[in-house]
Amino acid sequence: MPRIHFHQQLADLKDRLLAMAALAQQAVEAAVDAYVNSDLELCQYVRENETAINLAQREVDEMAYDLLAKEQPMAVDLRFILAVIKINADLERIGDQAVGIASRTSELLAENRPKLPADIPRMGALAGKMIRTAILALLDGDAQIAESVIAMDDEIDDLNRDSQAALVQCIQKSPESAAHALLAIMISRSLERISDHATNIATDVIFWVRGADLRHQLSLAEAE
Amino acid sequence: MPRIHFHQQLADLKDRLLAMAALAQQAVEAAVDAYVNSDLELCQYVRENETAINLAQREVDEMAYDLLAKEQPMAVDLRFILAVIKINADLERIGDQAVGIASRTSELLAENRPKLPADIPRMGALAGKMIRTAILALLDGDAQIAESVIAMDDEIDDLNRDSQAALVQCIQKSPESAAHALLAIMISRSLERISDHATNIATDVIFWVRGADLRHQLSLAEAE
Repeated sequence: MPRIHFHQQLADLKDRLLAMAALAQQAVEAAVDAYVNSDLELCQYVRENETAINLAQREVDEMAYDLLAKEQPMAVDLRFILAVIKINADLERIGDQAVGIASRTSELLAENRPKLPADIPRMGALAGKMIRTAILALLDGDAQIAESVIAMDDEIDDLNRDSQAALVQCIQKSPESAAHALLAIMISRSLERISDHATNIATDVIFWVRGADLRHQLSLAEAE
Repeated sequence: MPRIHFHQQLADLKDRLLAMAALAQQAVEAAVDAYVNSDLELCQYVRENETAINLAQREVDEMAYDLLAKEQPMAVDLRFILAVIKINADLERIGDQAVGIASRTSELLAENRPKLPADIPRMGALAGKMIRTAILALLDGDAQIAESVIAMDDEIDDLNRDSQAALVQCIQKSPESAAHALLAIMISRSLERISDHATNIATDVIFWVRGADLRHQLSLAEAE
């Protein structure tokens, strides 16, 4: 098989992965919008959209496996395909978390919604930005942009910790809000997990572009 | 390079993965023991052990990448190596969850520990059994054993839901227990996540052994 055909297949694989990424990003943004605007229909939309994400994930996986099996790629192409497989798994998990947020938002909306002290809009905006930036890094094969995603992770961790503390206080003051506050705690945690997945994606982009295993360097730094 | 040498390398890769699996399993069991026996030292042990798990994960990953790059394996060998990469990632996340359980248990033990209505011992025993069974399926390349892991997942999901409901009620009755009850909710949820990872491992074993993408079949079944 001519080499040019192989590179076309790699480009197709990347396009599919970007389409999958767009689905995952939209799911998160819709889930956060649903929370912010108390929109039950949007919750339903996110849950129905999960099937499309799972389908897209399978297609990317199968394409990547086929390329590995038939083309036996080497060096940078091999790293790219392995990065695609990992990024694809993270995108699917981002989609799962979005569905979790939508389900919990539905539960919150089922009753009179209390005012809860969690800055979900800000966390949601930050998580969305991290995903968008990670996708941009993937699109351009740009390790520097990928590093900027990793730098954003601490902020969302802090916001999550603040929300949790405020929500526990809220429960202690008004115990009748416990079930609702717990839902908000779970939503906050889902956004924090989404940011972890965006960080994983950024790390995989760096692994692909630079050929270095960033986790390795990070762990060496931790061990010092 | 002679083929026999390649198969020796695959066997070595499997041994390393099994060693990594043993570390992850021990971490979960130690974390649950620490909770059950209020053992602060054991919490500390689990947290210190994380470095060893991360090291083992990197070694398995690098070995798998090397094999892919140098040997260009096909068919069942390729599927095996891809399954190893995925299983390795799930084991590392199991280790992460064990560290999370240990950290939250430390927080619970820092103060007078209240009696909390969550059956952590039973969930812990079940999660441990799922991991052990998934490892056995991997060791023997046995898809039937792997399927029995998947069948156990519903039970732990139910236990997690029951714990969460009981803990929310507990908070409503005695708001001063909110912080503690929340820690127990997070521990319960970590055990549920560990069981999800064990299920992923079982699915990857089936993918390796049968060459069928089980996720595909499951999703088709869902779509019906």
